[in-house]
Amino acid sequence: MIDDDLSLLLEFLRFPSVSTDPSRNAAVAQCADWLAGQIRDAGLSVEVIPTPGHPVVLAKNSHVPGRPTVLIYGHYDVQPEDPVDQWDSPPFDPVIRDGVIYARGATDNKGQIFAHIRGMTATIREEGELPVNVIVLVEGEEEIGSCNLESFLSTHRDALKCDVVAVSDTGMIAPGVPTLTYGLRGIAALEFRIKGPSVDLHSGIYGGAVRNPAVVVAQLIATLHRPDGSIAVLGFYDDVQPLEEWERAAWAQLPLGDAELKAVTGVSQLAGEHGYSGLERIWGRPTAEVNGIGGGFQGEGSKTVIPKEAFAKLTFRLVPNQDPARVLKLIEAHLRMHCPDGVLLEITPGHTGESYVADPHSKYGRAAQEALRIAFPGKPLALIREGGSIPIINTFKRVLGVETILVGLALPDCRAHAPNENFPVANFRAGIALNRALLMQLATTSESPGASSR
Amino acid sequence: MIDDDLSLLLEFLRFPSVSTDPSRNAAVAQCADWLAGQIRDAGLSVEVIPTPGHPVVLAKNSHVPGRPTVLIYGHYDVQPEDPVDQWDSPPFDPVIRDGVIYARGATDNKGQIFAHIRGMTATIREEGELPVNVIVLVEGEEEIGSCNLESFLSTHRDALKCDVVAVSDTGMIAPGVPTLTYGLRGIAALEFRIKGPSVDLHSGIYGGAVRNPAVVVAQLIATLHRPDGSIAVLGFYDDVQPLEEWERAAWAQLPLGDAELKAVTGVSQLAGEHGYSGLERIWGRPTAEVNGIGGGFQGEGSKTVIPKEAFAKLTFRLVPNQDPARVLKLIEAHLRMHCPDGVLLEITPGHTGESYVADPHSKYGRAAQEALRIAFPGKPLALIREGGSIPIINTFKRVLGVETILVGLALPDCRAHAPNENFPVANFRAGIALNRALLMQLATTSESPGASSR
Repeated sequence: MIDDDLSLLLEFLRFPSVSTDPSRNAAVAQCADWLAGQIRDAGLSVEVIPTPGHPVVLAKNSHVPGRPTVLIYGHYDVQPEDPVDQWDSPPFDPVIRDGVIYARGATDNKGQIFAHIRGMTATIREEGELPVNVIVLVEGEEEIGSCNLESFLSTHRDALKCDVVAVSDTGMIAPGVPTLTYGLRGIAALEFRIKGPSVDLHSGIYGGAVRNPAVVVAQLIATLHRPDGSIAVLGFYDDVQPLEEWERAAWAQLPLGDAELKAVTGVSQLAGEHGYSGLERIWGRPTAEVNGIGGGFQGEGSKTVIPKEAFAKLTFRLVPNQDPARVLKLIEAHLRMHCPDGVLLEITPGHTGESYVADPHSKYGRAAQEALRIAFPGKPLALIREGGSIPIINTFKRVLGVETILVGLALPDCRAHAPNENFPVANFRAGIALNRALLMQLATTSESPGASSR
Repeated sequence: MIDDDLSLLLEFLRFPSVSTDPSRNAAVAQCADWLAGQIRDAGLSVEVIPTPGHPVVLAKNSHVPGRPTVLIYGHYDVQPEDPVDQWDSPPFDPVIRDGVIYARGATDNKGQIFAHIRGMTATIREEGELPVNVIVLVEGEEEIGSCNLESFLSTHRDALKCDVVAVSDTGMIAPGVPTLTYGLRGIAALEFRIKGPSVDLHSGIYGGAVRNPAVVVAQLIATLHRPDGSIAVLGFYDDVQPLEEWERAAWAQLPLGDAELKAVTGVSQLAGEHGYSGLERIWGRPTAEVNGIGGGFQGEGSKTVIPKEAFAKLTFRLVPNQDPARVLKLIEAHLRMHCPDGVLLEITPGHTGESYVADPHSKYGRAAQEALRIAFPGKPLALIREGGSIPIINTFKRVLGVETILVGLALPDCRAHAPNENFPVANFRAGIALNRALLMQLATTSESPGASSR
């Protein structure tokens, strides 16, 4: 049944609010204004605040001293719809097929943030007010790197003062499984280049007497891992926080195991650090990956050259408490130590991001768990980390000094960023229930200050 | 002084006989006809014989039973002149600056083959006849792989019956140093590809649990060499003919050592198999080289993917008596043995070519040495091998059953295949003298049949 909740979501999805496309700037602005209107209709005071890029929609209810304050974060901008010819229905003309909404932004993030807003609307309508102090921050630049968010947080630090942030922009490990994400990996990127002869050399005329930069790049990469799959860089594991026994036990019970990881990645066999399951390797252990490698002849057939240079692009996923800057220094020292003479090693450090972990058994974590149990009654709860990085979470921690509750509703096959992005109507409804439950549970946290037992 | 020899060479160089360019087909044919006329003028009988590609110019003098027969091979086709804007003078408008002829084909191979023809012209004019039976074979497809030469040799096997082949298409190790090349390396090419996940994976979401094809490619390449620079493929050295003591002693005396190799390649330090000099590694030892490597993100910056596949293009330079087909099997077995599970290894064998070595102290080798001493009086002789491959030499051996004398006149900076190709007038004159001396010396070989002492 298309009720107000659903028809308004479909309206939200019709705005082509593609933040990266300047020709859509008007649509992005219209979308922000429309959303502000929705939040105002719910009963919150709301502003659309310009930034050097797209505006931020910022709202709050009437704050009551003594109540906890939660900042609900989301974004109203979306990814481009390309390749548009691979969509089964137009990306900005949402349709519902078999109980699933198909549109750009359906999951990422309009469906999820709008569930929060409709949850607040219902609560205020039925209860007269929200049980906690709420700040709603919906930005329009998440898909282009949240480039103005950090300075916005700094500028509005006082207005944004809160006890905890809630974000619905992560995933559920399987349909119907309520999922609390309490950790994310960090990242450190680095590119290195090996330069040898002054020009590409004929591999017949000179082969055997000079180092081949492509061979040296390969040899250096081969030094990164030990035969047991661990990373052979001196000091790399020094600060790694080991997985806790309760995490390993909990993850082993999840309906997402090595068989499912094999199926979704299409490999014949998982691999990685000995002594850990696939999920443990992805969520709780650091990695060294080659994202790109190149050098010499790239075309069809053969060309007998010794390339004058070759390169590799590396990223390292990090876990608590690894310091990305220190890791980059260790990697650089490792490469310099293993690089043979007769070639030049050039290292270009890349971007870094810290890992994130919160205690899911803190008072906010327990409130989130209870809210998820209420929104998905009778379903076992999944306490997970994710292998990727969400930089804004660290920004909240750094600028506002608070933890984030990650209660995402995205399904593994939601096709975010891809054609036929989708979001089940059931997840939207669950999100509305989840918002209400979360606010109710957070209201109880002021009664047990500082509790952090398991 | 521009005498007949030189003015006719300049005429030869004016034909843009670029065999790979169909728009130059007429020029290639005119060049063949012109060359045939020159050989006829010298006093030989000559034919221009069509092939499926460009014609072969085939000539002979009146053969006298009992005299040795030498086949002089060369080519009248040239490389394209691109990039033409990097020439200091037009490539097909030869000029002489400071005693050096600049034109496409000046060294490779018009200058060198025409020295033979002018040498024969002079000898016949002065002596009334050549001292040996001569067959001259000048093809028009060397720069496009001599694609019709093997079938031409087979078809005309009886007419081409000879005792030895003489080719001037190799190099002198330094200006003024008479050089006999008695060996060439062979080659075996192979490409391999590692396929992992079914699509490029997000290295955050899945990194750590699946093998990264770019890492596996690097690890496999790193298994090819031992720390001492030798090749770690089982059985690879089984059939390698060790360098002889006289070769190592002779090469150590050449005015081309590690310092010169460093300078010409532009590396800070030579490298390679322990226990061998740079020249020994290039001329007398086999190699494993990566000619191209690729996989994953190739652009600027970073992209956090685990590439679904990666590849490497390898060539192995081979020495007597390695069998290229056997080497390819050994490499394939090596790669399969070291490839980990969880990925697919696809191997595509490439082209192969056998190595070549002749005894420089055989009767023909000694005749060539003596001729070089006469053409370059007072200069120490260099007996060398080369690191590259010249497939036609093996074709002569296989089809005609004879060895080849390689008495090249190309200088290290001749810029063959590049802009500003050049050939010193002095080398052209030396080539004329060399032809005459070589034919005289070969005439003496029938007097000491089968001798092969040092």
